[in-house]
Amino acid sequence: MRAAELIEQKRNGGEHDPGELAELILAYARDEVPDYQMAAWCMAVYFRGLSAAETQSLTDAMIRSGETLDLGALLGRKVVDKHSTGGVGDKTSIAVGPIVAACGVPLGKMSGRGLGHTGGTLDKLESIPGFRVELTTEELVAQLKDVGMAIVGQTADLVPADKKLYALRDVTATVDIVSLIASSIMSKKLAAGAQAIVLDVKVGDGAFMKTLDDARALAEQMREIGTRAGREVTCLLTDMDQPLGRAVGNALEVDEARDTIRGDGPADFTELVLDASARLLAYSDLGIDVDEGRRRAQAAVDDGSALETYERWIRAQGGDPDPSVLEQAPVQMPVAAPREGVVSRVGALAVGNAALELGAGRRTKDEPIDHAVGVLCFAKRGDTVLAGDDLAEVHARDDESARRAVAAVLAAYEIGDNAPVDHGILLDVVD
Amino acid sequence: MRAAELIEQKRNGGEHDPGELAELILAYARDEVPDYQMAAWCMAVYFRGLSAAETQSLTDAMIRSGETLDLGALLGRKVVDKHSTGGVGDKTSIAVGPIVAACGVPLGKMSGRGLGHTGGTLDKLESIPGFRVELTTEELVAQLKDVGMAIVGQTADLVPADKKLYALRDVTATVDIVSLIASSIMSKKLAAGAQAIVLDVKVGDGAFMKTLDDARALAEQMREIGTRAGREVTCLLTDMDQPLGRAVGNALEVDEARDTIRGDGPADFTELVLDASARLLAYSDLGIDVDEGRRRAQAAVDDGSALETYERWIRAQGGDPDPSVLEQAPVQMPVAAPREGVVSRVGALAVGNAALELGAGRRTKDEPIDHAVGVLCFAKRGDTVLAGDDLAEVHARDDESARRAVAAVLAAYEIGDNAPVDHGILLDVVD
Repeated sequence: MRAAELIEQKRNGGEHDPGELAELILAYARDEVPDYQMAAWCMAVYFRGLSAAETQSLTDAMIRSGETLDLGALLGRKVVDKHSTGGVGDKTSIAVGPIVAACGVPLGKMSGRGLGHTGGTLDKLESIPGFRVELTTEELVAQLKDVGMAIVGQTADLVPADKKLYALRDVTATVDIVSLIASSIMSKKLAAGAQAIVLDVKVGDGAFMKTLDDARALAEQMREIGTRAGREVTCLLTDMDQPLGRAVGNALEVDEARDTIRGDGPADFTELVLDASARLLAYSDLGIDVDEGRRRAQAAVDDGSALETYERWIRAQGGDPDPSVLEQAPVQMPVAAPREGVVSRVGALAVGNAALELGAGRRTKDEPIDHAVGVLCFAKRGDTVLAGDDLAEVHARDDESARRAVAAVLAAYEIGDNAPVDHGILLDVVD
Repeated sequence: MRAAELIEQKRNGGEHDPGELAELILAYARDEVPDYQMAAWCMAVYFRGLSAAETQSLTDAMIRSGETLDLGALLGRKVVDKHSTGGVGDKTSIAVGPIVAACGVPLGKMSGRGLGHTGGTLDKLESIPGFRVELTTEELVAQLKDVGMAIVGQTADLVPADKKLYALRDVTATVDIVSLIASSIMSKKLAAGAQAIVLDVKVGDGAFMKTLDDARALAEQMREIGTRAGREVTCLLTDMDQPLGRAVGNALEVDEARDTIRGDGPADFTELVLDASARLLAYSDLGIDVDEGRRRAQAAVDDGSALETYERWIRAQGGDPDPSVLEQAPVQMPVAAPREGVVSRVGALAVGNAALELGAGRRTKDEPIDHAVGVLCFAKRGDTVLAGDDLAEVHARDDESARRAVAAVLAAYEIGDNAPVDHGILLDVVD
């Protein structure tokens, strides 16, 4: 395997031999292929793409670059997992986990941190005082047996090639490549031992995938990788043209996830949480279908068992589940509707960037996060408003940043005379 | 200037601001932009190209990355220079220099080493025992004043960004990019202070540029860079579908260059040497045109003054100009014509690779070179041969490698029934 020859082969539109591609990735993970060759290869892949067989080979090599975890064997249960490609206001895992666990299906999830306008689940959970995201494998298994639920950071020895490659792609303008995204996500899910996976592929201006076609392409690639590896995979293509739910910002989102678990969440987010929960339950070893899964998920919300599981989970990881302990931002400033009409658009990217500017996210990997700040979008697409109504509310550290965010959030809203077409949160399902 | 943003801009087909592109190159030269970002940028340039303004800005930045040499001021003369894009059997500079110098025009040339199937002028000259290619600027100027002729290695402080970028491109499959080739060549010519430049752009299967259109594109880019910098530039597009002259291999080529200087060279090579010499003389401060240049070049060959200059030059750089001191390969094996007919093709790439296999070139930068080995192609395109005639002769270190080379050279020959179209060595001129 000569790296320069493989780069040239890809540059010229050729297809790699599976063994040679795997060797390239493994040699890169061992520091035997330098970053500069991998960067050139990634850029060639941007222009030429990878075939299904190549994507498979890449994913396999990623997994083989480190250790794997067989949660199924450790728990003696079929293991299900969910993953989102990332969006604005996406706190789905925090709500889905306790609901599924309350129905008797363990969910042990490895999550990441946020970068740019999309948040990371670990950052959100760390807005809960005391919550710790680093558990040993033994602690993880014990907690899953006891509480049925855990969200932890990815361990360093799981898929190290992906960590290295992702860091390189981040600084070489090679992040947005469907096959590399698919391989990165799926290698982590497969290495963690999930036997059935529900993937939430976000579509719209606040997501990586801007169009339904692009999202479907990513979904199909991920599904194919999973299927070839003998796993069950369902992809939900969900709307990310507007923020998910109302809350954007770490503590605000934890609060909204808790509200949703106890049946008091926003409509779009509640719909997504119950749908994803139902599909995970249908994939589990309970032997039920999606409709029955939906009924059980709803019941866990209604009877308070989901909230109880949430509280046990947060405590098990050292946190205090009482929402009053979440830090409140000192300044709260409303965003008033400039006219009467129907909300036709709430730009997810613009709201995400406003939250980022407030300090809710990080622009570079080492920036600290302000857990308290963010935006609450009360009015969503299709809502009728009067002039002066509160469209949204900005939670800020000071007046100056609040005023800037109010202007940015206001600009994200479009108010028209007619109701926009309502397509709901779930745009399509690939399974 | 953020490198990742520039990479993304180029990847998306955008055009760089000239100042930002220059800063990228200069920061790279200062080791402030890492190799991996530059490699991704080069691959994006492979797919998106550079505009004329970008190529100009790149070339300027290359020059500004190091020191420059003003040979014109140091000599008190207008300085002319020539450069070839590289081919098989290309020993043109070794013959042109002494002819031009014998006519009273100094030629101080910086050359490179060979890599792959094309040879480097420095490697060829080092087959002359004692010849040294490293002169100080003072030695170079003194020799130009005294002998009128010098060929030296490029100094480390001239265009260091090009050295660094070329080494990176070599291992990231980003060598064959017209704008980067044009910028690399021209930055070195401009930094060395040439006021008029004759560029020999090789076209054909033994050259970088495989088609006349590609070669013309490169020629036009180089000419534009030179013109914008206020220099005179002529590009000769010359045939590299078959080896130039007969000799391929270091000592063999020095011997052939010397033969040509004294009027006993192969027809195609002699034609190219006299044409290039004439154009250089016409560009010089002698105040003559190309036709008069041609007459004077021919006269310098005929009256022995070119050979005399050659001998003084080689001695000035420590070598012995007597051809009998060149090392002879121990094994010489003929390549016999398998049939009667007319030679319709002598594949330059195949002959170049056969010489490379014999040890005449290097596959990687640090391989040693065997100066004695190579191939003599007696029969060229259009020549009539009888079955059993010597098409060529292999000069090898041992019988085993000789036999392999004979088979390879034989495969490079095609013999037909009809004479091929004769287009001569000079295919076109861009000036």
